[in-house]
Amino acid sequence: MSEAAYVAVDWGTSSFRLWLMDRAGRVLAESRGQEGMMAAAKIGFATVLQSHIDAVGAADHLPVVICGMAGARQGWVEAGYIDTPADLASILQRAVPVPAQSRDIRILPGIAQRDPKAPDVMRGEETQLLGALGTDGEALVCMPGTHSKWASVRGGRVERFTTFMTGELFSVVSRETILSLAVANADEAVDIQAFKSAVAAAFGAPAFAANLLFQVRSGQLLYGGSAATARERISGTLIGLELAAGLGQDGLRDRSQRGITLVASGSLGELYRLAFDTLSVAVQCIDSEDASRRGLSVAAKFLAANAIWTL
Amino acid sequence: MSEAAYVAVDWGTSSFRLWLMDRAGRVLAESRGQEGMMAAAKIGFATVLQSHIDAVGAADHLPVVICGMAGARQGWVEAGYIDTPADLASILQRAVPVPAQSRDIRILPGIAQRDPKAPDVMRGEETQLLGALGTDGEALVCMPGTHSKWASVRGGRVERFTTFMTGELFSVVSRETILSLAVANADEAVDIQAFKSAVAAAFGAPAFAANLLFQVRSGQLLYGGSAATARERISGTLIGLELAAGLGQDGLRDRSQRGITLVASGSLGELYRLAFDTLSVAVQCIDSEDASRRGLSVAAKFLAANAIWTL
Repeated sequence: MSEAAYVAVDWGTSSFRLWLMDRAGRVLAESRGQEGMMAAAKIGFATVLQSHIDAVGAADHLPVVICGMAGARQGWVEAGYIDTPADLASILQRAVPVPAQSRDIRILPGIAQRDPKAPDVMRGEETQLLGALGTDGEALVCMPGTHSKWASVRGGRVERFTTFMTGELFSVVSRETILSLAVANADEAVDIQAFKSAVAAAFGAPAFAANLLFQVRSGQLLYGGSAATARERISGTLIGLELAAGLGQDGLRDRSQRGITLVASGSLGELYRLAFDTLSVAVQCIDSEDASRRGLSVAAKFLAANAIWTL
Repeated sequence: MSEAAYVAVDWGTSSFRLWLMDRAGRVLAESRGQEGMMAAAKIGFATVLQSHIDAVGAADHLPVVICGMAGARQGWVEAGYIDTPADLASILQRAVPVPAQSRDIRILPGIAQRDPKAPDVMRGEETQLLGALGTDGEALVCMPGTHSKWASVRGGRVERFTTFMTGELFSVVSRETILSLAVANADEAVDIQAFKSAVAAAFGAPAFAANLLFQVRSGQLLYGGSAATARERISGTLIGLELAAGLGQDGLRDRSQRGITLVASGSLGELYRLAFDTLSVAVQCIDSEDASRRGLSVAAKFLAANAIWTL
């Protein structure tokens, strides 16, 4: 077995993932937890990190590179933002050290779009972009999640990006509105047809989003239908609305761009793949965890190449 | 003072309004409460009604006419639906008596749109339409609320209608998502300019609704701004989205129609008036409580004219 060289951490709002890495960027061990920024702010960031380092048995001297919400103002140490247009390589130069720790710990900055007409921020996704596209990539990238991000990248530079509250809207609409009656006790069965037709309907008439959502309830009242179907329709409506902005006429897509890259994992990745497929849009899929880890590896190599770390 | 002839009740999901009326349709007394359908289903509908009848001192023999969610399946007695295209006069003929009561109590039916591509239901708004337009009215009517309704009425007939979850989305988005951080402890000051520009932005790019909402947070992070401004922007975004569907190119509006009627009350009515004004759309405003009460009066007169009631 190869020797451990550093620790890579993706520290989100509500999730924590740590990998023990060798010099070549291979994973030697992994530890996951629910202690995202919100929980860690109460428990203590150093305590949470140490418990996961102990779980993978990393040596005391190994350095740590972190991306995500740990660098937010409410996080561990504020890592600031690079402004758009932002070279992905420049996030490597702006890693912020966490002071007064026994080992070297660095947090990567986020990216800010300081445009009063379209203000936006990301933390963590810049590292996924770096991992997915490298420092000279070019693509329109869709990164689904609680707050989905679409980023236009050319020559390794993030030119613009746009956040959609799609995942969070799904959560509150299906749990906290009258639609909770329609989705109550839904089983896991995925109604692919209901999802696809909801995507197509919202994509075709995005202005009607708040009506298409209500139809989930009125349709069930007048015509019946399962709770799982209702859940799929809510999900399809909100994803279709997002894709209408991302792909539509007034959308983010510049047809000259070299294609669309979907950076996602698991069942959410499957749903978005199905949504793009519904609209006959070809996408290249990259696993979002792989992308984060690769981006963190690029950062580790940069720190070593610049004699900040000795790996 | 003129003599009490009947009792009129608008019984919504979460509100109760009762008026003691004379033969000419004038209000003699009024009683309001929070015991909407949800609360009344626990307390008992007859008990809630009697307490408000006692509050206005109505005599034992006076009959009662009710509109709204009391006629839903989960309500007091199911009053069914008239299907679209629905003559407003026909709801008068289908008032359902509440059995085994000491006085004559009748609940008006709702309207259903049994179109698998646009299923929809209303309960209460049909009575507002009757009161606002009479039995031969013609207008595109916007009725804002938790579930806003837009109805296309010609010759006293509801041809189509569309429900938007605008009010409920505002409530959950501003209380249960990350935007709750942006609106926390907002004072009552209304930022008219923020509201109007949010309406215009969502009207102009409805597909971006889930992004425009996120901008409330990212804009505050990067540029500051008060909690009241954030609240106005959420409200303007969601109302602008609704108006994009109602007024937009693929919208509900048929330009041959004789204008737009806004049926609303209080501060919500003011907001919608401001939203229409932002888009330079002239509207005729009718108070929604007056409309409900007038609709119930039309029903009472019908019951008397048909010798079902003796007023």
